[in-house]
Amino acid sequence: MIKETYKSFGFSSMETPCVEHIENLLSKQGGENEKLIFKILKRGEKLKLDTAECEADLVDGGLRYDLTLPLSRYYANHANDLPTPFKALQMGNVWRADRPQRGRFRQFMQCDIDILGEPGNIAEIELILATTTLLDRLDFKNFTIRMNDRRILKAMAAYSGFEEKDYDTVFIILDKMDKIGLEGVAEELLANGYAQESIDKYLELFKVITNDIEGVRYCKEKLDGFLSPEVAEGLCEIIESVEDVRAAEFRISFDPTLVRGMSYYTGTIFEISMDEFGGSVGGGGRYDEMIGKFTGQNTPACGFSIGFERIVMLLLERGYEIPQQREKKAYLLEKGLDSKEVINILKTAQDERAVGKQVAVLNMKKNRKFQKEQLLENGYTNIVECFRK
Amino acid sequence: MIKETYKSFGFSSMETPCVEHIENLLSKQGGENEKLIFKILKRGEKLKLDTAECEADLVDGGLRYDLTLPLSRYYANHANDLPTPFKALQMGNVWRADRPQRGRFRQFMQCDIDILGEPGNIAEIELILATTTLLDRLDFKNFTIRMNDRRILKAMAAYSGFEEKDYDTVFIILDKMDKIGLEGVAEELLANGYAQESIDKYLELFKVITNDIEGVRYCKEKLDGFLSPEVAEGLCEIIESVEDVRAAEFRISFDPTLVRGMSYYTGTIFEISMDEFGGSVGGGGRYDEMIGKFTGQNTPACGFSIGFERIVMLLLERGYEIPQQREKKAYLLEKGLDSKEVINILKTAQDERAVGKQVAVLNMKKNRKFQKEQLLENGYTNIVECFRK
Repeated sequence: MIKETYKSFGFSSMETPCVEHIENLLSKQGGENEKLIFKILKRGEKLKLDTAECEADLVDGGLRYDLTLPLSRYYANHANDLPTPFKALQMGNVWRADRPQRGRFRQFMQCDIDILGEPGNIAEIELILATTTLLDRLDFKNFTIRMNDRRILKAMAAYSGFEEKDYDTVFIILDKMDKIGLEGVAEELLANGYAQESIDKYLELFKVITNDIEGVRYCKEKLDGFLSPEVAEGLCEIIESVEDVRAAEFRISFDPTLVRGMSYYTGTIFEISMDEFGGSVGGGGRYDEMIGKFTGQNTPACGFSIGFERIVMLLLERGYEIPQQREKKAYLLEKGLDSKEVINILKTAQDERAVGKQVAVLNMKKNRKFQKEQLLENGYTNIVECFRK
Repeated sequence: MIKETYKSFGFSSMETPCVEHIENLLSKQGGENEKLIFKILKRGEKLKLDTAECEADLVDGGLRYDLTLPLSRYYANHANDLPTPFKALQMGNVWRADRPQRGRFRQFMQCDIDILGEPGNIAEIELILATTTLLDRLDFKNFTIRMNDRRILKAMAAYSGFEEKDYDTVFIILDKMDKIGLEGVAEELLANGYAQESIDKYLELFKVITNDIEGVRYCKEKLDGFLSPEVAEGLCEIIESVEDVRAAEFRISFDPTLVRGMSYYTGTIFEISMDEFGGSVGGGGRYDEMIGKFTGQNTPACGFSIGFERIVMLLLERGYEIPQQREKKAYLLEKGLDSKEVINILKTAQDERAVGKQVAVLNMKKNRKFQKEQLLENGYTNIVECFRK
């Protein structure tokens, strides 16, 4: 259903390698994820264990922590052969050496859609419509698309008097808002040595800004001089368009506390929140400068990613059952059955498969009753026992 | 089509992790592939670069070189919850640090079907029927399933007077038969110090044995005392059954020179040869002792694997085109189009997607003619230009 839905929006399925050059993975674009990389040892003559002094002497690759970086590298190498914009659909495994927990694994699958080469808001709008259409088809209702823009984040920090070099630290602390609350954030900012005045000014903003278009408009006015008005207008346009077009029941809101971990984001950022799951089930944003790191020429790019295992986990918890599409039939062959008889059964099975049935030809077990029960459990409603003549 | 076909034989789709414990990968079951492993560095506190003396101090994982080993580990851990036999379908990436060449990549996808828990020949027969049915549906005609049995290989070596400790070396040399011929094999065996008498006796067998059921029967007689007659009878039964049941045009033959690299095979082995491709496009065999390495209790197991990229490469070389299933439509929005207009177009696009069309909503480029050409090339036959009023 994921592939079907995304293809209906004109995204083309593609795949990139799981192993990435280590220098690309460690280029400080991946935020905290760069600490969680599974690193791959050099091979053959390149591996010099005796003289190695640091990790870089031993390692030349790593498992990708997301699909955005390899996609950008692919696009950088093939831009001339690709349509503009290039709408890519990727479903692939990524790896993070994190502590496994509910809905979080060290190997997990991301389902990403990306629009490369489109600077306009239509990219964000189509990405959000595609993702929410998919979630709606999977019967998710109670979810919210939370939106922010890196440039609003920065403008708020600048307006409050933080220095640019401190933004990353400030945002990491701000990101904990939903866990430690406004006061927790204030305390931690203070503990990090920032001026009380800046902290007060900063947190006052979060008290006042509402989680809707009015909130964005408030930012536009209040942050005048720090924020280009087009940024706020763009965000309004995206939120309004999605609200107007959506047929499904979901909310789209402005969330000035939304940070997103990856430091490669340059503009809009968004995340999916669901009532039944604490963490995020998906997110994305604009990363207009990543492809330029490979080509020297920036290319507008925007993507939306959902976590496959989290979606599946929520579906299963809800009692979702995979629809049974075909008739399942099993032939059980008694031991010592005449070989001509067996060949006839195999031929019949082939004919039935050719017309769309699912057919298993199996040797009969000693415990025939248990075998039949197991088959029934697995959806084999038609069990044919073939005994010796 | 791969998944569809294999499911029609009752195989269930499943996935295993790409990263495997290094000690499982290096357990001497993978033959030459164990030299080609991408190894993964220990992480965090476990990584002690200063005191490391050998690779084992640094490495705790590796990328799997095939899908059989992780499947066996999975089965060993979950046998009680799985049906008997367990029919698994896996399509997953594997990694080998080989030199890339035509149809050979360092990351590639294997499509494996395995039947676990079934000791009888019905496993081999169903695996071969499933794989050949798939190849037939993909319109491959000129291929051969070459069959052998590890026990015949061993019996031939024993009959000729080779010692058991030398079998592996002898088989590695035998495996080069198609490249260096009978004389080349003789020379290399001699160069390795084996007795002329053994070599003559051994190679005489290959001159006499025919590539059909008669060849198997000859082995049964000639190798009496070295080979259990059931092994030859089993192989005859498999070949005869497949020959009788097949509707497709392919050949199934006995090939006493077939070795297969993996040392985990214990019984039947098979490989697909195609006229248009020098190497193998797939193969498999019985590995009755691998699961026992995890559980202490041997479980019969048999699998057949095909190489996805090789199959796709051959299809593409033949001019295969992916069938276009849906109407593809693109809306091109002129810059400055009224936002209400845009929302109406987005709504229409959503409705069209809901009824199965593929619809892209794109900003109109300055070079509109080129944009339209690109879209046409990508199958967008219906292009709607939306201009400002």
